[in-house]
Amino acid sequence: MIHAFIKKGCFQDSVSLMLISRKLSETEGVEDVSVMMGTPANKALLETTGFWHDDFATATPNDICVAILSQNEDPAIVLKICQQLDSALEGVGQANGAGQKLVQARRWESACQKLPLANLTLISIAGEYAAELANQSLDSGKNVMIFSDNVSLEDEIALKTKAREKGLIVMGPDCGTTIIAGTPLAFANVMAEGNIGVIGASGTGIQELISQIALNGQGISHALGLGGRDLSAQIGGISALTAVEMLSADSQSQVLAFVSKPPAQSVRKTVIAAMHAQSKPVVALFLGHKSAQKRDGNIWFAETLDDAARLACLLANVERQRAMAPLVAGGKITGLYTGGTLAAEAAMLLAEQLGVEADDEHHHGTMLDADGHRVVDLGDDFYTVGKPHPMIDPTTRNQMIKDLATQDEVGVLLLDVVIGYGAQADPAGTLVSAITALQDKRRKPLAIIATVTGTESDPQCRSKQRAILRDAGVIVMDTLPEATLLASKLIHSQPLVTQQTTHPLLEYVAVINAGLRSFAQDLQATATPVVHFQWAPVAGGNPKLARLLALLK
Amino acid sequence: MIHAFIKKGCFQDSVSLMLISRKLSETEGVEDVSVMMGTPANKALLETTGFWHDDFATATPNDICVAILSQNEDPAIVLKICQQLDSALEGVGQANGAGQKLVQARRWESACQKLPLANLTLISIAGEYAAELANQSLDSGKNVMIFSDNVSLEDEIALKTKAREKGLIVMGPDCGTTIIAGTPLAFANVMAEGNIGVIGASGTGIQELISQIALNGQGISHALGLGGRDLSAQIGGISALTAVEMLSADSQSQVLAFVSKPPAQSVRKTVIAAMHAQSKPVVALFLGHKSAQKRDGNIWFAETLDDAARLACLLANVERQRAMAPLVAGGKITGLYTGGTLAAEAAMLLAEQLGVEADDEHHHGTMLDADGHRVVDLGDDFYTVGKPHPMIDPTTRNQMIKDLATQDEVGVLLLDVVIGYGAQADPAGTLVSAITALQDKRRKPLAIIATVTGTESDPQCRSKQRAILRDAGVIVMDTLPEATLLASKLIHSQPLVTQQTTHPLLEYVAVINAGLRSFAQDLQATATPVVHFQWAPVAGGNPKLARLLALLK
Repeated sequence: MIHAFIKKGCFQDSVSLMLISRKLSETEGVEDVSVMMGTPANKALLETTGFWHDDFATATPNDICVAILSQNEDPAIVLKICQQLDSALEGVGQANGAGQKLVQARRWESACQKLPLANLTLISIAGEYAAELANQSLDSGKNVMIFSDNVSLEDEIALKTKAREKGLIVMGPDCGTTIIAGTPLAFANVMAEGNIGVIGASGTGIQELISQIALNGQGISHALGLGGRDLSAQIGGISALTAVEMLSADSQSQVLAFVSKPPAQSVRKTVIAAMHAQSKPVVALFLGHKSAQKRDGNIWFAETLDDAARLACLLANVERQRAMAPLVAGGKITGLYTGGTLAAEAAMLLAEQLGVEADDEHHHGTMLDADGHRVVDLGDDFYTVGKPHPMIDPTTRNQMIKDLATQDEVGVLLLDVVIGYGAQADPAGTLVSAITALQDKRRKPLAIIATVTGTESDPQCRSKQRAILRDAGVIVMDTLPEATLLASKLIHSQPLVTQQTTHPLLEYVAVINAGLRSFAQDLQATATPVVHFQWAPVAGGNPKLARLLALLK
Repeated sequence: MIHAFIKKGCFQDSVSLMLISRKLSETEGVEDVSVMMGTPANKALLETTGFWHDDFATATPNDICVAILSQNEDPAIVLKICQQLDSALEGVGQANGAGQKLVQARRWESACQKLPLANLTLISIAGEYAAELANQSLDSGKNVMIFSDNVSLEDEIALKTKAREKGLIVMGPDCGTTIIAGTPLAFANVMAEGNIGVIGASGTGIQELISQIALNGQGISHALGLGGRDLSAQIGGISALTAVEMLSADSQSQVLAFVSKPPAQSVRKTVIAAMHAQSKPVVALFLGHKSAQKRDGNIWFAETLDDAARLACLLANVERQRAMAPLVAGGKITGLYTGGTLAAEAAMLLAEQLGVEADDEHHHGTMLDADGHRVVDLGDDFYTVGKPHPMIDPTTRNQMIKDLATQDEVGVLLLDVVIGYGAQADPAGTLVSAITALQDKRRKPLAIIATVTGTESDPQCRSKQRAILRDAGVIVMDTLPEATLLASKLIHSQPLVTQQTTHPLLEYVAVINAGLRSFAQDLQATATPVVHFQWAPVAGGNPKLARLLALLK
């Protein structure tokens, strides 16, 4: 049978109540205990799940409804559960593990007074009340993140339109994840700092994307959630546009990664246009949309979350190196490879990136010879008659490197270093001696980019060979796609544009949290200024009365 | 001016002579010293590089030609260099670093006697003599790796045809790299043991591919080189076919990775057919060939070397897990996801792999419902009314998991575990309690595959959560493509076919090395049985005389 009672005027968030439900259900003599606020939606649920009791009819959204399923008909069980509930409720809001007490406020105004710097309201109250609080927040100049779902389309449009006019952003509704400079908002992962700025209309999409970025050994600047409907035709990607603008003006975000379901056709155009309008490389994953196109200007299209993460990491590596490389815009690329297949792949990739044709005849080991750019395979028979392979004998390549001293038109030199059994004892060292001789005589800047083929366990040791190259000013990349992309970016580089103003929300975050208390505790645990606004439905959740009260203010 | 002298009847390999050249060039009073065997090709080179001296006219391929470039006209310099050459030549063949003396033989027969188990001849002598030695090796039942280039097409065809008839393999000519169970043949890298078997018609192609496999944290079984011409129309991929057969019969090679330039059209068909004829997954990189097709049955097509490595590692992970997973062939797949985007990506990938359609209506969070397979997003509104999100509240999913106890038709359960701020304190632990309850009641085998979204720095710690799942018998994969591919492979798995016989060369390697002494030293350093055959041109390199001598034998 179902025993029931109501605890009046004692609003609690759903997670706290879930934890209390679980604890009370362990009580001897009961089978299950349901503890919920008396909102209309919850009442309906109590009916369908068989926990309904007629006493609940009068409960308001501010009242806790407790239903006890038990074989025991003795009403004493109700008293027992009621006492346990009281002591559990006392526990809520006590000091958390770290012993630090959460700053709390019962009224919006007092929350604002307690944290005057607050620039974001994190809303996880029941959806039907979320829009009003979000509106209040925007009116006081604060950005909004709405974790709650069940907010109407009309409200979402109105809120986002207002925010955009005020230079603010509304993330959500139904926005599960945002991370601003390490600050965890709702569902968030602890990430290393990096140069990838993430935007997502999907909470776990962001989470899996950044987890894969972490697995690739890299980090993020920020991750901004939009809410699942932002890219629908009705909303028109309002927050997506704001987020793209925010991250494109943010100097730490050198690469953008965007994840969402396929946008509405018209919205896709708008968002793609916004991505093109800024110069940073963008990885776009419109999950479920199979694009024949792999790249469109500065936009790379991915097909899965791990694929998007990998692409973002590749671009992030390239951008990081580009920011530090010599200025060689307008120069030509020369690739001098000892490995034939490495030369072939480098030529193929460069041809794609530069929009020229690779050389199919391979005369004298020439794999690319177009528009002043050249890639040569020095293992070609032409160079090895009477001599050991260039992986053993560096003489020919070293001479060609020294000859670059007077070839002012060359701006980038691409090289391979192959280690392992059979190769030289210290190929990086030998190469560096030639590079030093070249740089001593060279007047114009030259960017030298190398890849190392071989493993950490090889006699020469991959990381040691890389270190020798780096110490000599060589840029060492992990793969040929990275190396060739960097090369082609360097010769096309424009001088950096004047820095745009960083959006204030990316400068610092101070939060008023309304709804799930645990979100405020997480913020506190990461030393983010936060006030927990103990929101409860106005006028006991009676909409008519609430409107009247609002008019009286 | 050029001073010159000849040292008669003293054959040395080109790497030893290069090292001697470099050392002698450092002598005071000389600008450069060239030390080469008097082969026709080398003589031509001496002419074009300005080191020619008329004394060289009478030199045979068995004679060392020394050319000294010096401003000094005093012939005393010749005596000085001559003495230095003698002492350098004495140094060659002395104990190497490890102090172990190389076993050597001056005649082929005595090399064979000194190493009766020898099953491979590694040939790096001048190309014009390589075919004859290779032929001799095949006749005595030994496999051949020809590092030398400059071997005629006719010879290559004849050698490979003979080898195939005898159940042997000819790797090369111009084969730079082979690694058999860690044994380095010519240019080779030190790799961890793994389940990826590599085949390549390109030396540095193999080296870069396996280096990237190592960067991905995985290893190889073997890597077999073919030589750059093997896939030409003339050769017809003879050795490629042998290599595919060898690795498909090798139980340690669970995944094959193949790298070459695009084969001739007819050869491509033959090779693809051979890949299809065996059941193992194959990654094929025909570098430079853009395939619209990403997969053809058990063949996955890659576009770059690092791409091929990544695909091979993905498949290797899947095959490793498949070998240990419960037998659930013919079962259905159920995916219960707490993350909406994770559910969407899993549904998209499964639909592709199973050849069904994903569900676009998402009624009640259903992302896939076809042919008995189901993927559900438990974060859908349908499941969250009045309850926290399933990433916070595991009740609904745990109940659905327990319900699988009697759903015998389900063979695979796909799950996500999302960690980080906002999520449960120990989602893996909670999930495991439900899984244990399920497995206690379940009569039929069920494979449970999970992915973890989140990072190592998250409060719950990625690796710890993975360990909790693994300890409970859950298969934990890195990405959704891995997890879904494993799922679809498991329900299609055939019982393992009876083991084919492993090719003897993959059982052990014992080498007769002819040519570059350093290759023998590398083999010795890795404890591979090796005899260095001190090959020198028969009859002083006079072809007529050599033929006469052969007839007299």
